[in-house]
Amino acid sequence: MPQLLRVQNFTVTRDGVAAGADQSFARPFGLDGAEQLFAWAGATASWPNRTEPGGSRGLDDYFTRDFAHDIGAEIMGRNKFGPQRGPWRDHEWRGWWGDQPPFHTPVFVMTHHDRPSFTLSDTTFHFVGGDPATVLKRAREAARGKDVRLGGGVTTIRQFLDADLVDTLHVVVSPVELGSGLRLWQSPDAWLDRFHREVVPSPSGVTHHLFWRR
Amino acid sequence: MPQLLRVQNFTVTRDGVAAGADQSFARPFGLDGAEQLFAWAGATASWPNRTEPGGSRGLDDYFTRDFAHDIGAEIMGRNKFGPQRGPWRDHEWRGWWGDQPPFHTPVFVMTHHDRPSFTLSDTTFHFVGGDPATVLKRAREAARGKDVRLGGGVTTIRQFLDADLVDTLHVVVSPVELGSGLRLWQSPDAWLDRFHREVVPSPSGVTHHLFWRR
Repeated sequence: MPQLLRVQNFTVTRDGVAAGADQSFARPFGLDGAEQLFAWAGATASWPNRTEPGGSRGLDDYFTRDFAHDIGAEIMGRNKFGPQRGPWRDHEWRGWWGDQPPFHTPVFVMTHHDRPSFTLSDTTFHFVGGDPATVLKRAREAARGKDVRLGGGVTTIRQFLDADLVDTLHVVVSPVELGSGLRLWQSPDAWLDRFHREVVPSPSGVTHHLFWRR
Repeated sequence: MPQLLRVQNFTVTRDGVAAGADQSFARPFGLDGAEQLFAWAGATASWPNRTEPGGSRGLDDYFTRDFAHDIGAEIMGRNKFGPQRGPWRDHEWRGWWGDQPPFHTPVFVMTHHDRPSFTLSDTTFHFVGGDPATVLKRAREAARGKDVRLGGGVTTIRQFLDADLVDTLHVVVSPVELGSGLRLWQSPDAWLDRFHREVVPSPSGVTHHLFWRR
């Protein structure tokens, strides 16, 4: 089986916005009300952060359930990892996810600024420079035959799309408006020259857009 | 996490028919044209029997991809295993699936007639009597904390539903008519007193019905 590069559960507003311009510790997405974006995932039985039993096992649950399935590594942009910019002042920040990050695989954080790798539970974070193809090569090796998740954010996904390295994308359009910000697309039709697409409305109100290479 | 009993990818005609009355070696489902029922699954990239690359990675693929995910054992009725009835004349028949069955776990075949267990590749078939609750208990032990798949056929699924042992059902309604036979339901609304349901039309033409306990 080929090792795919997969975008999964990446959620945008009705306008295609996934992040605001002013990211901070208090606003990881730089948007007020960003938690509304992910309400669809939090309602499912298989949401990785779920602490209580219950949750739906309908369509949306197939997507949260698939988050870690056959994934051996993640690639993320530095802004998904934290709100810092420029050289690391210290190494105290270890991501937004506490002592038990939901990745359970090696994670490659793309940054021009060196920093030593570290491990939290069963997730190891590596900080890597280089172009998308070089980073993908490292992540594939670490994934040991499994697929690689492209975790975002917007800028990182667009970089890998520009380099034509993405095999599948699952983008969730949430029926909310959160103002302006970084847009994943101008229109969900923007990629149809390169990808097949299915658009699947969910009973929960979100719409799943599934893309795979032509 | 609880160990669920899950029906997955169980496909019926527009009328709810999943098998005909006259099963034989040549007609495992006792229906002419039964292969039309499963065309939706065969078109996906993750279909377990796929031998060539390709296939769709849209909605239907999430369902075939989930077939083995977190499953530790399968329960099936004797008629899913083979067309024989009554005591086993010999032990030559080892199922429809060749030397590499797609289960990769212990499989419990429900029958009143004793037969020794045997192993093909990484699938071991056990032949068990007893009521559904007793068989489920054995399958759960064998599944080592994972879920149990209820593989069918119709009669077996109805037995477990009557005993209120099923946690989730994924039933695929294919837009074909193959004549009369064993019906899974008189109407897909029949179970709404006990289950939540979502009905999700797929671009491929089938409709996915997702049920989970209230």
